[in-house]
Amino acid sequence: MSRTVFVNGTYLPEDQATVSIFDRGFLMADGVYEVTSVLDGKLVDFDGHTKRLHRSLEELDMQAPCSDADLLEMHRELIRLNGIDQGMIYLQVTRGNPGDRSFLFPDGAVKPTIVAFTQDIPTLADAPAAKTGFKVISVPDIRWGRRDIKTVQLLYPSMAKMMAKKAGVDDSWMVEDGHVTEGTSNNAYIIKGNRIITRQLTNDILHGITRAAVLRFAAEAQFEVEERPFTVDEVKQADEAFATAATIFVMPVVEIDGAQIGAGKPGPVATRLRELYIDEMRKAAI
Amino acid sequence: MSRTVFVNGTYLPEDQATVSIFDRGFLMADGVYEVTSVLDGKLVDFDGHTKRLHRSLEELDMQAPCSDADLLEMHRELIRLNGIDQGMIYLQVTRGNPGDRSFLFPDGAVKPTIVAFTQDIPTLADAPAAKTGFKVISVPDIRWGRRDIKTVQLLYPSMAKMMAKKAGVDDSWMVEDGHVTEGTSNNAYIIKGNRIITRQLTNDILHGITRAAVLRFAAEAQFEVEERPFTVDEVKQADEAFATAATIFVMPVVEIDGAQIGAGKPGPVATRLRELYIDEMRKAAI
Repeated sequence: MSRTVFVNGTYLPEDQATVSIFDRGFLMADGVYEVTSVLDGKLVDFDGHTKRLHRSLEELDMQAPCSDADLLEMHRELIRLNGIDQGMIYLQVTRGNPGDRSFLFPDGAVKPTIVAFTQDIPTLADAPAAKTGFKVISVPDIRWGRRDIKTVQLLYPSMAKMMAKKAGVDDSWMVEDGHVTEGTSNNAYIIKGNRIITRQLTNDILHGITRAAVLRFAAEAQFEVEERPFTVDEVKQADEAFATAATIFVMPVVEIDGAQIGAGKPGPVATRLRELYIDEMRKAAI
Repeated sequence: MSRTVFVNGTYLPEDQATVSIFDRGFLMADGVYEVTSVLDGKLVDFDGHTKRLHRSLEELDMQAPCSDADLLEMHRELIRLNGIDQGMIYLQVTRGNPGDRSFLFPDGAVKPTIVAFTQDIPTLADAPAAKTGFKVISVPDIRWGRRDIKTVQLLYPSMAKMMAKKAGVDDSWMVEDGHVTEGTSNNAYIIKGNRIITRQLTNDILHGITRAAVLRFAAEAQFEVEERPFTVDEVKQADEAFATAATIFVMPVVEIDGAQIGAGKPGPVATRLRELYIDEMRKAAI
């Protein structure tokens, strides 16, 4: 069945969904995005994603494409039109179509472009991968210096995902100056005893919405949370490791660079955090 | 007058030129580009741009969209359809539209997207800016680590161009580890006596097609060419400075961070190199 997607105020069949070749998202990667999960036909942490969208837009001096109320309404309409029970909604906002190409930003009269579409993921909560865990490799992190802004400059993460595929594993964890930054589209964590260690928020990593919620739940569940960079060797010596992102929630990581992490299978802490996260988010979804 | 542009084999009015929202150029900045100048209705160094396009595609495991003969034919047809005497042709190739979003590259059955359009620049050769020279500021270079691949990940260069505009100057020269890498869309040079100094080719800078030709002409004209990184202080102490790119040819740079370079006006070497370049390229244009 063809999806119904959203482009600049209009709902239309996915094969008719286009943008101008002069759109700055296409010519200059001048756009930002958010991915919101859907559980039971409801939006997971929509408020968190909306706040981060505004932060990304502000950091780039980009206009908001519509009100937050309209954004919520549009997300709900896409869920309804596409009958999504479990899955995600992808939202992208670009600086719009100035009608020609220039390195200079267009003036304020050029409206941002907004597009959104759904992905149906029936096994989102009950993901088979969560039962066996992700295997990862480490790769150099050569991305730009503002990874805290959720831009569409995703070529290197995409290349790193292909490196993982070629290595027969699930993802790559990127390493800079000897320390893990994050996965290709997720934040990275290790567990030592009762302590959860994850890189602190700077311009070096995405400020994960799932990360914020998981750390909150972890603290409430009496885990210690330590925010600092860690090395690949520390990952190998950890009791457990995991990754978080909107569409994987909490995903155990059981191997890095061929070395087994802990017992080499999803451990009790990651598994508990995943359950906690899904339970709480299911309750709070709107 | 509306331009006629090229999208995936079809010539059409610019306001009808679109790509799918699922195009990887739009969703992931997974695309590369070239800009070829037009003088007297002919293509400048087309062979150089075609070779670099192939290099960019190969570095990213991306397919060529068509034969080189078809590419040339299309460029010439755009010149003809749009009556371009002086200007440029912008060409972009992306990994195409797989019909959905994934960090994994689509399989080989997905054809690359190819788009191209013209810009009419009547003062291309006789640019007013070349008579007064560019003023620049230095800004940190925070781009990714593969600037030798001419990708559409141009958000930071675009931001740096806006920084220049806000500072009331023409461009920004980017600086990494204390040394100039390049301008926002051009290679950077200083001149000391008979010596032309420009950064050597690595993954840190674009391998300029204009750069290659200018260095060749400079050597033929008995200038010494030294390829090494230089500092902003060296720019301030230089006799002259200049930038090169397809659409500015050789552009004198007369000020950096408010400090006058040399006499603060286009110097004899940059001016001579500009004349040499334009004369030679006019003769060789196809």
